[in-house]
Amino acid sequence: MPDLVDIGMGRTARRAYGFDDVHIVPSRRTRSSREISTAWQIDAYRFEIPLVTHPTDAIVSPAMAVRIGQLGGLGVLNAEGLWARHACVDKLLVQLASVVGEAGETAAVRLLQQWHAAPIRPELLTEAIGQMAQAGVTVAARVSPQHARDLAPGLVAAGVEILVVQGTIVSAQHVSRDCEPLNLVEFIASLDVPVIAGGVGDYRTALHLMRTGAAGVIVGHGAGASTSTGEVLGIGVPMATAVADAAAARRDYLDETGGRYVHVIADGGMRTSGDIAKAIACGADAVMLGEPLAAAAEAPGNGCYWTAAAAHPSLPRSQVTKVPESAIGIDTLLFGPSSDPRGTVNLFGALRRAMAKTGYSELKEFQKVGLTIRS
Amino acid sequence: MPDLVDIGMGRTARRAYGFDDVHIVPSRRTRSSREISTAWQIDAYRFEIPLVTHPTDAIVSPAMAVRIGQLGGLGVLNAEGLWARHACVDKLLVQLASVVGEAGETAAVRLLQQWHAAPIRPELLTEAIGQMAQAGVTVAARVSPQHARDLAPGLVAAGVEILVVQGTIVSAQHVSRDCEPLNLVEFIASLDVPVIAGGVGDYRTALHLMRTGAAGVIVGHGAGASTSTGEVLGIGVPMATAVADAAAARRDYLDETGGRYVHVIADGGMRTSGDIAKAIACGADAVMLGEPLAAAAEAPGNGCYWTAAAAHPSLPRSQVTKVPESAIGIDTLLFGPSSDPRGTVNLFGALRRAMAKTGYSELKEFQKVGLTIRS
Amino acid sequence: MPDLVDIGMGRTARRAYGFDDVHIVPSRRTRSSREISTAWQIDAYRFEIPLVTHPTDAIVSPAMAVRIGQLGGLGVLNAEGLWARHACVDKLLVQLASVVGEAGETAAVRLLQQWHAAPIRPELLTEAIGQMAQAGVTVAARVSPQHARDLAPGLVAAGVEILVVQGTIVSAQHVSRDCEPLNLVEFIASLDVPVIAGGVGDYRTALHLMRTGAAGVIVGHGAGASTSTGEVLGIGVPMATAVADAAAARRDYLDETGGRYVHVIADGGMRTSGDIAKAIACGADAVMLGEPLAAAAEAPGNGCYWTAAAAHPSLPRSQVTKVPESAIGIDTLLFGPSSDPRGTVNLFGALRRAMAKTGYSELKEFQKVGLTIRS
Amino acid sequence: MPDLVDIGMGRTARRAYGFDDVHIVPSRRTRSSREISTAWQIDAYRFEIPLVTHPTDAIVSPAMAVRIGQLGGLGVLNAEGLWARHACVDKLLVQLASVVGEAGETAAVRLLQQWHAAPIRPELLTEAIGQMAQAGVTVAARVSPQHARDLAPGLVAAGVEILVVQGTIVSAQHVSRDCEPLNLVEFIASLDVPVIAGGVGDYRTALHLMRTGAAGVIVGHGAGASTSTGEVLGIGVPMATAVADAAAARRDYLDETGGRYVHVIADGGMRTSGDIAKAIACGADAVMLGEPLAAAAEAPGNGCYWTAAAAHPSLPRSQVTKVPESAIGIDTLLFGPSSDPRGTVNLFGALRRAMAKTGYSELKEFQKVGLTIRS
Repeated sequence: MPDLVDIGMGRTARRAYGFDDVHIVPSRRTRSSREISTAWQIDAYRFEIPLVTHPTDAIVSPAMAVRIGQLGGLGVLNAEGLWARHACVDKLLVQLASVVGEAGETAAVRLLQQWHAAPIRPELLTEAIGQMAQAGVTVAARVSPQHARDLAPGLVAAGVEILVVQGTIVSAQHVSRDCEPLNLVEFIASLDVPVIAGGVGDYRTALHLMRTGAAGVIVGHGAGASTSTGEVLGIGVPMATAVADAAAARRDYLDETGGRYVHVIADGGMRTSGDIAKAIACGADAVMLGEPLAAAAEAPGNGCYWTAAAAHPSLPRSQVTKVPESAIGIDTLLFGPSSDPRGTVNLFGALRRAMAKTGYSELKEFQKVGLTIRS
Repeated sequence: MPDLVDIGMGRTARRAYGFDDVHIVPSRRTRSSREISTAWQIDAYRFEIPLVTHPTDAIVSPAMAVRIGQLGGLGVLNAEGLWARHACVDKLLVQLASVVGEAGETAAVRLLQQWHAAPIRPELLTEAIGQMAQAGVTVAARVSPQHARDLAPGLVAAGVEILVVQGTIVSAQHVSRDCEPLNLVEFIASLDVPVIAGGVGDYRTALHLMRTGAAGVIVGHGAGASTSTGEVLGIGVPMATAVADAAAARRDYLDETGGRYVHVIADGGMRTSGDIAKAIACGADAVMLGEPLAAAAEAPGNGCYWTAAAAHPSLPRSQVTKVPESAIGIDTLLFGPSSDPRGTVNLFGALRRAMAKTGYSELKEFQKVGLTIRS
Repeated sequence: MPDLVDIGMGRTARRAYGFDDVHIVPSRRTRSSREISTAWQIDAYRFEIPLVTHPTDAIVSPAMAVRIGQLGGLGVLNAEGLWARHACVDKLLVQLASVVGEAGETAAVRLLQQWHAAPIRPELLTEAIGQMAQAGVTVAARVSPQHARDLAPGLVAAGVEILVVQGTIVSAQHVSRDCEPLNLVEFIASLDVPVIAGGVGDYRTALHLMRTGAAGVIVGHGAGASTSTGEVLGIGVPMATAVADAAAARRDYLDETGGRYVHVIADGGMRTSGDIAKAIACGADAVMLGEPLAAAAEAPGNGCYWTAAAAHPSLPRSQVTKVPESAIGIDTLLFGPSSDPRGTVNLFGALRRAMAKTGYSELKEFQKVGLTIRS
Repeated sequence: MPDLVDIGMGRTARRAYGFDDVHIVPSRRTRSSREISTAWQIDAYRFEIPLVTHPTDAIVSPAMAVRIGQLGGLGVLNAEGLWARHACVDKLLVQLASVVGEAGETAAVRLLQQWHAAPIRPELLTEAIGQMAQAGVTVAARVSPQHARDLAPGLVAAGVEILVVQGTIVSAQHVSRDCEPLNLVEFIASLDVPVIAGGVGDYRTALHLMRTGAAGVIVGHGAGASTSTGEVLGIGVPMATAVADAAAARRDYLDETGGRYVHVIADGGMRTSGDIAKAIACGADAVMLGEPLAAAAEAPGNGCYWTAAAAHPSLPRSQVTKVPESAIGIDTLLFGPSSDPRGTVNLFGALRRAMAKTGYSELKEFQKVGLTIRS
């Protein structure tokens, strides 16, 4: 039962929790960490680690998507970002990093706004996707609900194997008088590739998105140190509760369909490897990581991080931040070895060890690990 | 049911919440933000945005009140502030801003105390109000309960269309042996203009004020970074609870009168656009903003902020603070575009978008949006 | 019913609250602050304000006790402090203030430990008490339970009218094999002056102390920024709960004796005038203030503060801290006028106004004002 | 009953508390602190204070173990640390302290990783243990579950009287395909010396460890300012709840065996003497201290602190931190006198006084002292 609180006479609010409020508690056997599997499979695609990248230009270039794929995860290119609009993105990003340092974050946001005002150039997208497809990794790209219909055919033709339809907040029922909104059911049915859609923050929207035929549902909107959806819109998604609710929707939808399993992908609230373990423990099948990967030497952002919401023309909801440390190889970031004891390096080695310490050998089982709330 | 807590044997306290404790949670359809209305109407006056200014000299000069009116909000001049007592307020405020920087906040408070010791000059008030009336915007001014009877006739004669009767804490029943206190029922009945009264912090006082015939009730006392009512008096108004309670009083009074709708105006606890959305979500019809407008280039305070309580002769309850950024056009502050992702610019564009993301097209409906409490 | 929490299997803890957790909520009429009485009477002694000083040498010299008395409060001299052991205390305190600044707090604690190793000199005490008695104010001094029997006769002979028997934590039943502990019942019965005893932190000990014949019971142990009982001993007294519990003991003892009213005096957790109002609101009859008075120009500590526990020979539990501002006249500190909006000046003018804003004209009634807990 | 919270639909978490959340509340008689016993006995070994050292090279050299033993506690040497691998540990530790200051914590962790890559040299261990045995104190050493079988015979032969089998998280049932895991029941039965095992974080694992025949169970994993198990693994052990649960397991095991008493030793979450008192108050029989002893002049770490987890080859979970103050004699650190009022000196004198203030004369009784939770 949702835990309702009377915040005033006749007005209730749901009590909700973030990953920070939750701790994993070992309470069974322990296991050797060499005998743990962190494998994850969605549709026909299998990954050694349950990692999907947040589709921000700060961390995903075509080359980085390939590297992530080679390392066992899923890199998602933003098909409406800089790589879709500009030929020399690397040069722009060098400029951006120097503006952050010299002129401050607002100036950097202004630059991103300008660059995103340029039109999407299909030939750039085709080239970028082609580069990923050629490398033999699973190819994924992100579109917004607004541009999904226009961009999807070209992306699939270029080689996209998994399409991510993602806005800050997405619903199965978008209402508009001016233009016909995206009908996700029809859109997904019309595609030959599986769709991951989101983000959502509650049980109902998660269930509705599952019913559209999506293969995966993204929970959250990539909240991290740089995002400010709460300050700007008042909207917040306490991730532990949101992930658990979406997992409940997954169970109910599995029952209602007699066996269709839609994956829950947690996006946001994860800063350390411990948070990744907590996301799985709350019910996620995989995690969508942004900020924690910005320290990678291979990340195109040169040690800066922002989300797509930073480029909104009138209401940006992400800062451009410098990550404290950078230039760590992405392989080390994901698998170690680490000499940094703060949970920011060896992210998936740590997940493996958390599972070992609590005696679980598969991700699916680890979703049942004991949790405590620190009150 | 109010949520009562035993703080000790035989002593209970009500559990109460602020806007910081609350988050909006999207859980329905989404909408295009172009199809949202933020219009608000009180008595015969319609506003494009549910904005009333906190009546402090730091943000409301006659010129600024006109500008706010032209932009679709309601500017309220403090009829007992500096514009009512001094001819060259602009010069004084330049002096104040330099004293804050050089001699510190206590020296600035002392200066405000001195300036407020000067008598109110009716001819100055008439001139100020006349300037607002001439511009064709809705004219509003604030008086204290103590001086309401003396000042109201002159203000209405000069052109005031909405009278705001506001003290830090106001009740429908003020007890005094020395002088006859303001009888709000008689006072409001004797006036030809609608009255907005407050601030209040609980259901009972809100209901009593509604019964005096007020058109709107102010909830809270403008709490922000600069105010210190809690430290000085021990009195606190957790705004989420107070607004929800006043909304309950509005419903009950609507029922008891068979249809008289008294508006609830939230005053305090709002620092960002997200807080504005939360105030409406908790049940407010409009918001009274002070500190968030102090960054406006047009604000007379020159980047400083204080409330009327700063000038109390013996017990000031507001500091004079410098706002971190300033000199942003008031139109940009209200409607964007913004390059600052922290929720302090494009305040009402953000409200519109928060409504869009949660699928509501009218303010009145948005009062029912889902909320979570982060425990 | 005390609100019990299972912290672990078979182990419960009481949920308890401090003044910081509590806010006063206006919910009735308002009053003119000129019509409020803050008078307090204990035994035959009447005071214009419910103020008892914490018996620390940092704020109470014989001269300061006289001044406090003239201003309507009760100054309590520590009969086991520096004035009882040294002839030139002023000179020592000048030295202490300079050591704090130069050699740090630990060096200052060491100095206090040394000075308190000197023996108590009865002739110094007689002289100090005599100085207070001559001024015509109510004379009060503090002794520890250990030395109460030895010191009391001399103190009463010298002019003490109210005796304060105070240790960090005091019980009605002290157990010792080596020496016979103070029997408070017999001790109080043997004295001709009323006794205030404490500090206590719970209902049971408060009730037991009331049964010893004490006129007043001190709740808390003067906790403030400088004290560290929690860090050193793990012992904490959340003041809102402790005061409410002691008030319950007062009610029950009143009933059990058919009318004996023992005063509850809150000692600790009060930093601002708002905290004083909260202490009364939670059920206190009077407040024992230390740190908030250290800013007084007349305070012997020269802007430093510490409690008697700083001088413990082997386990000090109070730092020697510099107060941020000082050299404000004690009359201004208590009654204003203030130009500082942070609740540290005009302490009892603020109490009066808090009562006015909530419609109470007597302290005893104000104990019933509405409270909220910010969760 | 464990206090379960719905964090989301169909997903619960246990509400849990740390020592910071808990306060001791005096509610009975008081006692003279000279009449208190802090004695603790496990198996045939009696200690004047309930102190076991955390087996980190930062605080335990063979000489320090002897000194702790002479002062009435139990020093535990890490049999897999630097003293087991290198001849000139003192020189290494001087180098480490200078690296922390100059090259930062990550460089220091890297150094520890390198040094721990060297093999264990049995002759060094034999020499170190022999040095401790010769001094006549109780001799204890720590092994990991992985190396317990290999190292135990040599250690016992060299003079170890109490064996500590300790990993970050230990279970009675470790599962592994590659190698046969340690069977604690057989292992303990095969030894002639008592075994203390841990750490555990919950009732069930504590009970299972008790059933292996262990004489004591360690609760927690030495969490302190330098450890980062939560950030790295997401695993947290709120100590107040974990200790209370282990105490419940102790009671149930006592009942199920008809009288076998297994000691509960709290390891972590203790920074001050107040925390030590709280650990006992929550049900611990003894405390395992690390970081609070790093300030000792005799500590081999030269004012630095880290736990064994800092040296993990691929996933370190402890920083190397500088302690704020150091070079205090270990006797003063444990028994005073102190001139520092912050609870970091005179650790066990403070425990004694906390027991006195609450009227308990034995540790076992003090486990029942009243507690409050500050909400």
